[in-house]
Order: sequence, then C-alpha cells, then structure tokens
Amino acid sequence: MSGGLGAQQDREKELEVLQFWKVRVESELDQVVAFWTKNSHDPEHGGFLTCLGHDGEVYDDLKYVWLQGRQVWMYCHLYRKFERFRQPELLDAAKAGGEFLLRCARVAPPEQKCAFTLTRDGRPVKVQRTIFSECFYTMAMDALWKVTGDTRYQREATEMMDQIVHWVREDPSGLGRPQLAGTPAAESMAVPMMLLSLVAQLGDEDEVLAGRYAELGDWCAQKILQHVQRDGRAVLENVSEDGQELPGCLGRHQNPGHALEAGWFLLQYASRKGDPELQAYVIEKFLLQPFNSGWDPNYGGLFYFQDADGLCPTQLEWNMKLWWPHCEAMIAFLMGYKDSGNPALLRLFKKVAKYAFLRFRDPKQGEWFGYLNREGQVALTIKGGPFKGCFHVPRCLAMCEEMLGTLVSNHALDPGASCALPVAPARCGTE
Amino acid sequence: MSGGLGAQQDREKELEVLQFWKVRVESELDQVVAFWTKNSHDPEHGGFLTCLGHDGEVYDDLKYVWLQGRQVWMYCHLYRKFERFRQPELLDAAKAGGEFLLRCARVAPPEQKCAFTLTRDGRPVKVQRTIFSECFYTMAMDALWKVTGDTRYQREATEMMDQIVHWVREDPSGLGRPQLAGTPAAESMAVPMMLLSLVAQLGDEDEVLAGRYAELGDWCAQKILQHVQRDGRAVLENVSEDGQELPGCLGRHQNPGHALEAGWFLLQYASRKGDPELQAYVIEKFLLQPFNSGWDPNYGGLFYFQDADGLCPTQLEWNMKLWWPHCEAMIAFLMGYKDSGNPALLRLFKKVAKYAFLRFRDPKQGEWFGYLNREGQVALTIKGGPFKGCFHVPRCLAMCEEMLGTLVSNHALDPGASCALPVAPARCGTE
Repeated sequence: MSGGLGAQQDREKELEVLQFWKVRVESELDQVVAFWTKNSHDPEHGGFLTCLGHDGEVYDDLKYVWLQGRQVWMYCHLYRKFERFRQPELLDAAKAGGEFLLRCARVAPPEQKCAFTLTRDGRPVKVQRTIFSECFYTMAMDALWKVTGDTRYQREATEMMDQIVHWVREDPSGLGRPQLAGTPAAESMAVPMMLLSLVAQLGDEDEVLAGRYAELGDWCAQKILQHVQRDGRAVLENVSEDGQELPGCLGRHQNPGHALEAGWFLLQYASRKGDPELQAYVIEKFLLQPFNSGWDPNYGGLFYFQDADGLCPTQLEWNMKLWWPHCEAMIAFLMGYKDSGNPALLRLFKKVAKYAFLRFRDPKQGEWFGYLNREGQVALTIKGGPFKGCFHVPRCLAMCEEMLGTLVSNHALDPGASCALPVAPARCGTE
Repeated sequence: MSGGLGAQQDREKELEVLQFWKVRVESELDQVVAFWTKNSHDPEHGGFLTCLGHDGEVYDDLKYVWLQGRQVWMYCHLYRKFERFRQPELLDAAKAGGEFLLRCARVAPPEQKCAFTLTRDGRPVKVQRTIFSECFYTMAMDALWKVTGDTRYQREATEMMDQIVHWVREDPSGLGRPQLAGTPAAESMAVPMMLLSLVAQLGDEDEVLAGRYAELGDWCAQKILQHVQRDGRAVLENVSEDGQELPGCLGRHQNPGHALEAGWFLLQYASRKGDPELQAYVIEKFLLQPFNSGWDPNYGGLFYFQDADGLCPTQLEWNMKLWWPHCEAMIAFLMGYKDSGNPALLRLFKKVAKYAFLRFRDPKQGEWFGYLNREGQVALTIKGGPFKGCFHVPRCLAMCEEMLGTLVSNHALDPGASCALPVAPARCGTE
C-alpha cells in the first residue's frame, strides 16, 4: 500500500497499538515493582531474597550475586528515570543491596573474584569460573554512583570493570578454569554482550567513561557480529576465536532470545554510532531471523534452545518457553520499530507482548511466571529463583514504557510522520 | 484372600506375568544391544560415540568418560553372564574401550583425576570436581579384569578404587573444589550409592576383595540409610554430615528414581548380609514410599525431581519423565518381589514396565527415548547424549531377564510355593 488515506489509517492504527500498550505496560510495571518491594527485601542483612513462590513467599534464602546486582541496578534505574519511582524505599533498598555486595560479594578480598551464591548473611557458597557475577556487581555499583553521587561506588565500578576486561582480553587465568588440551578455544556470545551492556551503562551520561570505553564497545560489537554464521543465515552462540563455526553441538547451539537481546544491544550501539547500515543489518540478522526460526509455529512462544541443523538439542529444557527471551524480544522489536519505523516490527512486538501477557503474567499474585512447557502452560510456579529475579520483566516494562512514551509523543507532535528516525530514514515510510 | 484355590490361581497369574515379561525383556535386550553395537563403536580410536540421534546417527563425537566406562562394563557383564552375548565383537569393543580409557581418561597422569569429557581422539575437554568419572573407570576396569583375567585391569581398578575412597573418606582436596565459608557440609546420596555399587562389583566372585571392602560396604549402607528423614517419611538426596536435614531447596530435594536405585543397591546388600529386617525396611522406605510420592497421578511415570514440602522444584526438568528412573524402578520392584515374595511388588514392576515399554521404547529404530514431557510425549528424540549411553536400559533388561529367569524356574520347581525367599520368609505368602 502507499500514501494517502490508507497510509493515514495505518498510522492511526499504529498509534492505537502504541497507546494501548503504553497503558498496559505502565500499569504492569507498577504491579511488578510492588511484588519485589513487598516480598524480596532483607531488612536484616541487606540485599534481596529472590527465591519466591507464586505468592511471593520465600522458599530459600540463598542469595545469588547476579540477582543482587541486577535488582540494585533495576531499582536505581527506576529511581533515576521515572518520576513515580523516585521513592526513598527503592533507593534505600538499592543502597542496602549495594552495601551487602560491597561487604560480601568478593570471595577472598582484596581479590576481585566474586561468588555466585552467598548465604543470607553473606558467606560464599559457590563460585563460578566466569565473569558474570562481577559484571552484575559492576552494573550495580555504576547505577548506585549515578543516583547517589557517592564516588566509592564509582571507584568500585571502574576497578571491577578493568579487572573484567583484563580477564577477557588479556589473561583469563584468574578465573580459575584449567587449561585442557582438548577444550576448544570457543567464544561465547554472552561475554561481548555482557561487556557491551556495561560499556553502555558506564558511558550513560558520562562522557569521560564513554570515551574511555569506546574502543572496547567497538571490539564487543565486532565480536558479537562474528556470531552471524552460515552466510548470514544463523546466529550461533559459540564460535571459534577467529570467528568460525565450531564442530558438534557446541557449534550448532542457538538461543533465539539471546540473539534478540544481542540485537537490541547492537541497535543501541548503532544509534550511538549513527550507523544506519548496521541498524538494518542487525534488524535482519538478530531480530527477524532468530524470531522466524525460534518462534514455535504450533504453540507460539520462543523455543529456549535450537540446533542450527534442526537436530534435537541435548538440553532437556530446549522446547520450554522462558520469560526472559520474550522480555528481550519485546524490547528488541519495539526498539527496532522506533529506530527504523518499519511497522512489521511493531506487529512483532505486539505478537510477543500478547503471548507474554497472556501466558507469563500472573494477574492474581503479581509478577510473571518464568517457565512454561512447550504448550505454554506453567511448568514451574516460582516467581523468582536462582536465575529469575527483579530484572528481565521490570527492565522490559520500563524500557518499553519509555519507548512507547517517545513514540506516542512523536505521533502527537507530527501525526503525519511515519516514525522517529535517529539513524535510518531510508527504511521508513510506506514500504 | 487366603489359601486354597484362590491362592493357587493367584500364583498362576503371577507365573503368567513372569513368563510374559521374560520373553519381552529378553527380546528387547537383543534389540538394544544391537543398536549400540551397530551405531556406537569407534574403530579408529576405540571407545564409544554415544551422542546418537533417533536413528542411531552420530550428532556429536565428544566422548563422555562416564559413558565410556559404563559401556565397557555393560559389554563385559553381558559377555560374562549371558551365553548368547559371548561374542568376540562385544569383548573386542569392551577391550578397545578399556584401552581408550587407560590411554586417555586421566587428565594429568600419573595423577588419578579423570576427565568428564574427551575429544574423540582422547584429549581432555572438561573435568568435574567429583568422583564419578573415576568410579565408572573403576567399574570398567574391574569388569575387564573379570572377563579377560588380565591383571593390568585389576591393578587399575583397585588403585583407582583406593584413590576414590581416599577422596571420599579422608581428604577431598585432590578433587579441586574450593573450601568456602558458606558451603554447607552436605552429603549427597550419590556418593555412598556409587561406592556401594563398586563394592558389589569388585567383590563379585572375588572373596579377597569382598573381604577387603566389607567395612566400606557397611559404611556406605549406613550413609545411604541416613537419607531417610522426617521420621521415616522421605528420602532426601542431601543431608548434613551428621545425618540431619539441610535448610532450603538443597535439603528438600528429592529424586524418586534415585531413591529406587538406592533401594535395589541396598536390597543386594541386605541379601549379602542375610538381613531380613533391613530388606523389609528398604522395601518400605526406598521402594514403596518414593514410588507413591513420585508417580504422577495424572499422566503416569515418575517425576524427575520433587520437593519434600511439595513446593515447586527450581530445576526446569522436574516434571519430565526420564528413562533411567523407570529402569531403576523396574529392577527395584522385581528384586523386591524376588526377595520378599510380596505380589504387590510384582504388580508395581508390571505397572512401571508397561509405562516404560509404551512410552520410552522406540519400536521403529531401536533403543529407548530418554526424555519425555510430563504428559509422556517424547521431548528429546536423541537415543544417546551426554548422560544417556549403553547402560541403564540394557542393565535393567539384563538384570530383569536374569531375575525373571530365576523366578520362572523356581515356580517350575515348586509351583505351589509362593516365592524365592533368600532372607525374608516372614513377609511372603498370603498377606
């Protein structure tokens, strides 16, 4: 279709969709935040209890460092970016979480290595030989610095960041993984993704740090882009150090939700760079392709894992529908639409959001279920656990609320224009 | 009911069941062994390729040390105990698997620590900080010693066994796990179970080793029995060092199939000891209770994991139906019936066997599927993978064939008697 009355009607329909979801997402964010403030705070030791049943009851008091850092970040983000969340309760809980991390996250201070799990009072239970606990620690500290202005937090963030970069780019031996003759030199997409998100976090409204980590951001983006394999037809989770496909299951492993998350990290990066070609490439390779191959044609929802040859994955949960890939897909498609104006991306946002609100959301007790079976029924009734905390759902809702607000305002300012176009005007309009 | 014609009819019905399943199990064992001999041998490097699709095709060539050791053991067991499997092809493959393990399993010889995964040509890929690779290595070596008489294998078996016992009972530091202030001193039931099965293996037809490891066997049995908790109402997978329930999910964790497997290990132990009280206790606590709580009332099959408080487990696969718990349940109930004569146990054997043959067995391509969803549909089409090899299915079929043979023969010898009763005559008859 093109121009005139038809285009105008399409634009009005788009505006309706944007307005409907803005209201829905905003009210859902309130309820989700209320669930965590009501159920997860630990007034005794600081930090958060994230093992919460369907009704918010604590079923285990272990503290997962990833989730401590993520909840601190989330509270700070809400406090900083949303007028209605500028509540002392949120800031105090974030600070208490940050102090808990400062006091307990490191396994053997002054060594920087952090635990994966802590007891409620902060003694280390388990250590992973990866960088992720440290990354979420950094994210928390930087967010605290940005809301409090306390330079202790800033120093913690940059010192840990530098340690992580050292492990990743120079010498991983401090992580404790043995070097074995048969271990493939595999690069997981998670590592440059995590670092790229830290680059965005630390550089946000901070020109000095943005400049300091600019080259790292470029390096991360290039590393992520190496995961587009098979003549551009597949994003693979693991590739060799020189960017080739690895043999076996490890090489063929795909995670559509993770590709979509990488997609919106790269869209933000393309925006910062003002690179419309990269934006178009990312929308094609990291948004549309993973969605098309990863969306279950029979029952809806994104498969958790896939094999690039269409073989059966060996992970037992491969065909389950998890909350977080759907959160990431909502962000990715709305951001893709916002950046490109392509209405197909808004339709995909709507499709994923409808599925997520229908299947994951718990209208009775608040928050979302995390784990559905292939058919979309709740398989685990927990609202929080070792890997699900106050993060993916509220981050998705908060980011979508902000983007929907921008999009609705832009419509109001210029109802005839087709979209907000920071970098890619060529892709908008009546295509 | 009691005595006379009714009892005679019941006995005839039992004999029918035994004969029916003897034929079925025997033919199934042939087909399962054929699947592995056809698809899994590696003529180039020795050892076995166990990542096999539904049709037996290799989808990954990593070699899992657990599965290498188990397949060597399985082939030796079949060769040694079954006339029709006394085939050079099986023995040669077992020896080639054993030589592959001797050559490649150790990560840094002469250190005893073994890898978890190896490349096809035997280079270490991954090491677990547990004893299980070493246990299956020991099992393989002892089985090879018993069929070949080659003392190299015997020496390997006992040296590795002594190392494992040292790690478990004296000093675990060689396993490489860091000591952390918050890690609970938890005892996993898997460790004494594994050791008890090695005690049975090494002591089988070897009075010297049976004597040498007798005290260890008693220690293992006591350790396993400590996992009966909550006034005898639940078998918990993890308990404290002094045999108390641990807090949180770790403490409440249950695995009904594992309890049933422990059950038949303990039944064998009770037989060796001639302890009818222990036998009755084990049937109650490790067979009937885990089955009653673990069998899905809606769709049949054993849940993989449960929480002793009835809360939702945090493992994504908790409600899936896995092949091996059903294999272990078949062995446990048939052994319980053979040892006690209680016909209720034969009925449970039949119930589990019917479910397993209907749901797991693949009549088209051979072997069994390993992973069903809660409803009993195939969720993963693989026949072998990182944890499924030539072990649980053929071990179950071989043991059931032997037990069914014994039971049918006993019936034929004395059709009026109620059962074979090595240790517990009081529990038999018309109860």
